Amino acid sequence: RFFHRGRMAKSKFEYVKSFESEDKLLPNCWIVVRVDGKSFHKFSEKHEFEKPNDIRALHLMNRAAVKVMEHFKDIVISYGDSDEFSFILRKDTEIFNRRGFKIMTYINSLFSSSYVYCWKQHFDVKLKFPPFFDARIILYPTDENLRDYLSWRQVDCHINNLYNTTFWALVLKGGLTNQEAEKRLCGTVTADKNEILFSEFNINYNDEPEIFKKGTILLRKKIRSPNSDHFKKVIIPLHEDLISEKFWNIHSEILTIKS
Amino acid sequence: RFFHRGRMAKSKFEYVKSFESEDKLLPNCWIVVRVDGKSFHKFSEKHEFEKPNDIRALHLMNRAAVKVMEHFKDIVISYGDSDEFSFILRKDTEIFNRRGFKIMTYINSLFSSSYVYCWKQHFDVKLKFPPFFDARIILYPTDENLRDYLSWRQVDCHINNLYNTTFWALVLKGGLTNQEAEKRLCGTVTADKNEILFSEFNINYNDEPEIFKKGTILLRKKIRSPNSDHFKKVIIPLHEDLISEKFWNIHSEILTIKS
Amino acid sequence: RFFHRGRMAKSKFEYVKSFESEDKLLPNCWIVVRVDGKSFHKFSEKHEFEKPNDIRALHLMNRAAVKVMEHFKDIVISYGDSDEFSFILRKDTEIFNRRGFKIMTYINSLFSSSYVYCWKQHFDVKLKFPPFFDARIILYPTDENLRDYLSWRQVDCHINNLYNTTFWALVLKGGLTNQEAEKRLCGTVTADKNEILFSEFNINYNDEPEIFKKGTILLRKKIRSPNSDHFKKVIIPLHEDLISEKFWNIHSEILTIKS
Amino acid sequence: RFFHRGRMAKSKFEYVKSFESEDKLLPNCWIVVRVDGKSFHKFSEKHEFEKPNDIRALHLMNRAAVKVMEHFKDIVISYGDSDEFSFILRKDTEIFNRRGFKIMTYINSLFSSSYVYCWKQHFDVKLKFPPFFDARIILYPTDENLRDYLSWRQVDCHINNLYNTTFWALVLKGGLTNQEAEKRLCGTVTADKNEILFSEFNINYNDEPEIFKKGTILLRKKIRSPNSDHFKKVIIPLHEDLISEKFWNIHSEILTIKS
Repeated sequence: RFFHRGRMAKSKFEYVKSFESEDKLLPNCWIVVRVDGKSFHKFSEKHEFEKPNDIRALHLMNRAAVKVMEHFKDIVISYGDSDEFSFILRKDTEIFNRRGFKIMTYINSLFSSSYVYCWKQHFDVKLKFPPFFDARIILYPTDENLRDYLSWRQVDCHINNLYNTTFWALVLKGGLTNQEAEKRLCGTVTADKNEILFSEFNINYNDEPEIFKKGTILLRKKIRSPNSDHFKKVIIPLHEDLISEKFWNIHSEILTIKS
Repeated sequence: RFFHRGRMAKSKFEYVKSFESEDKLLPNCWIVVRVDGKSFHKFSEKHEFEKPNDIRALHLMNRAAVKVMEHFKDIVISYGDSDEFSFILRKDTEIFNRRGFKIMTYINSLFSSSYVYCWKQHFDVKLKFPPFFDARIILYPTDENLRDYLSWRQVDCHINNLYNTTFWALVLKGGLTNQEAEKRLCGTVTADKNEILFSEFNINYNDEPEIFKKGTILLRKKIRSPNSDHFKKVIIPLHEDLISEKFWNIHSEILTIKS
Repeated sequence: RFFHRGRMAKSKFEYVKSFESEDKLLPNCWIVVRVDGKSFHKFSEKHEFEKPNDIRALHLMNRAAVKVMEHFKDIVISYGDSDEFSFILRKDTEIFNRRGFKIMTYINSLFSSSYVYCWKQHFDVKLKFPPFFDARIILYPTDENLRDYLSWRQVDCHINNLYNTTFWALVLKGGLTNQEAEKRLCGTVTADKNEILFSEFNINYNDEPEIFKKGTILLRKKIRSPNSDHFKKVIIPLHEDLISEKFWNIHSEILTIKS
Repeated sequence: RFFHRGRMAKSKFEYVKSFESEDKLLPNCWIVVRVDGKSFHKFSEKHEFEKPNDIRALHLMNRAAVKVMEHFKDIVISYGDSDEFSFILRKDTEIFNRRGFKIMTYINSLFSSSYVYCWKQHFDVKLKFPPFFDARIILYPTDENLRDYLSWRQVDCHINNLYNTTFWALVLKGGLTNQEAEKRLCGTVTADKNEILFSEFNINYNDEPEIFKKGTILLRKKIRSPNSDHFKKVIIPLHEDLISEKFWNIHSEILTIKS
């Protein structure tokens, strides 16, 4: 509503409201909302993203995700790579009464509008058309399930990045056509791709930027304000391995935060 | 995905995918997706929307809705007023395999990003922060139910607009405070508000712009190209009564379109 | 509850109730509940059902279905054959607030307990163990969808009955083993099976009992009490074609009954 | 199906099958199915159940529950009192592919048919009509949630039993009418009821049978066959406190059983 809402005269049409369905999420489960770009292959072509990774595009995704986290305080960790971002809400959140549709669509919408809103801070090229994203919402009953979910996404990031890094080296530096590069990579495993990168293009995959290899983790951290004893909460980006035990030991507050 | 997707090595984490739930919508029902602005009262204050209606804001909503309809061809009619818009998809649409989450989140996301994308074509003032919208999805089994849904929204538009028109006349022209205006309107019915407008402010409510009183209906129509015999489909805005039989007789194709 | 329920002291465990989920059915749709026997192949073997059809078993199914219809007045028509029965509730029923779980489980439970309760009225052999049934609940938005559902079940009845009639003729009268009969029927169409029955066993399939070929339709009908002008509602079994228009013309009240 | 199923000719009606909805339960959660008698107040009146507790009725409920557990091996513990029974399935069960409707309706149906089937082993009076039960299915993500669920039901059993014991003492031994007894108990707490029982009827509530006060827990236990070293699994009834830590220490296998 822009301004005031008139007292609803109960019209004979009101009954249609009863066709809406409830969607209260099971309590005591981690809530994951993942947004995923629609047709970003084409979108990235049209906006001349750098290959295999466009750092501006990744920073823009991260910026949009930060906007979402600033608004929804019950998000305790987010993880993104490529054109997708996952937001994890506390197990005990009561936001919007745990109505799944509300949670999912608000996060998706704010992410989408922020992406467009922040575009020109990251790209010189004008945005040619508005991109959009779908969203899904998933429940995980245990901490282990949640960690496995995040590990799954980070493994996915790694697999795709190694593939793309090798593919575009073959095309852009090796002079292969897309089809030739695809064929060349068909059936290769991790070691094969590392070898191609190293022996043919002098690229040590390990030296690639962490943000490409690991994606971006967004966490809330308390930091001390300079020149004062006050603490404030900030959202910080990390590009680390989150599969190992070490990450969860260092950031143990993620799994234990209560409202 | 930006570029290529690597062949998925089946990691031990893959099982987490099985926690996603299905949400196939019942076949042979009208599908309504309604997007609704979050905190638009505050948003309109911050961007100094004109009261009681800001024609720029309404045109921007309509523009974003047109973007959605251009993309999703199975939307046969849309209706919007204030900060909400409803999109109706054909009963027999098989878009996204009738997966409700996909339909709802794509429409919501494209509407949201289009709103920001088109902002500066409608407003001189800079957008201060990205607005966002929730979405819901509702099924209606019969044509009658669907018409009643649209009638419900148009009645809602009317009730709110009459209230706001009177309220802001009392405040902006009558010099009342917000509280005084609220109190004055408490318990009044339609005739009372019409009378206040006419006798105190010389406003005949019937002469108010149709877009304020009726909201906006977006329809697809075939029109003949000038200087040729070709027809093309365009999306046209109407500001008419859609509650009466007349509307549905004139636009009888809405309810009968098949894929 | 057997007797009284004590005033619930709100214990700290009460919160677990919030984990239950809602399941309100979409309004204005036909509600179909179908119960289906679990492992009735084995059950019929153990209780020496006659092959290919045991009239006692069919009558028992019908009896259990009548018990269900006597209790749930919003069921307007039921259809059963073999070990399954479908119950159709009025589109506008508000029974149990349209909570799907309640509707489905009550019908299923009453059908199951009635089956055992009425067993000895139909069988001399003692019931060796309690049989059981699953249930599902399905919504149909239009009369056409509902009719097609019932037609689907009746076509299914026909196909299975023709198959079984021919199969058991080959085995019981033709002396084939089960495997030989199966092989013989593999790839045959309706005409082939009719031909086998007629030429080899002198059976004209058309002369088979209607209850075998068509299953059982249960309808509510008003009948005049003898010696009086009073009408009363009774549930009557029919063994007719319900696919044709004729059935729905004669029994036109089924689709038009309102609460 | 009684016998064979004919090869389905794909009729034009088959499409109606697509209106069925999925209902796969979230993995890694405890599954609780609770059955609950419909109108058992009336049922118990008609069959002259003893007040405040009819031991035959309780034993019959337990018998029906055992039948269910014998069939569904993934049920690790059950709990019942009065006219309700809860069945808990292993977190990792894959029974019926975790389709909730199947699980719920099969358990409910087998419980219902077993209740009728076993009636005459417990009651001399003839069963006058078939009773029936509803069922609901609830997910609990953690062991703590599950324990709290069971505690909730046992607290409920206690509260109701204390109330009924006192109520019927007042009526049957004290000569009060039902209304007078109700009024007398209005606003009383546990200590009050204990006092009434003791001072007026010389009943020490603690000496009441455990099955009345605690309900019935059904567990699977390995026992050694007499005269042999073989173990076999049996289902045993317990009437104990399951709220305390002690119960879960002794029967620690309940929460740890894996498939």
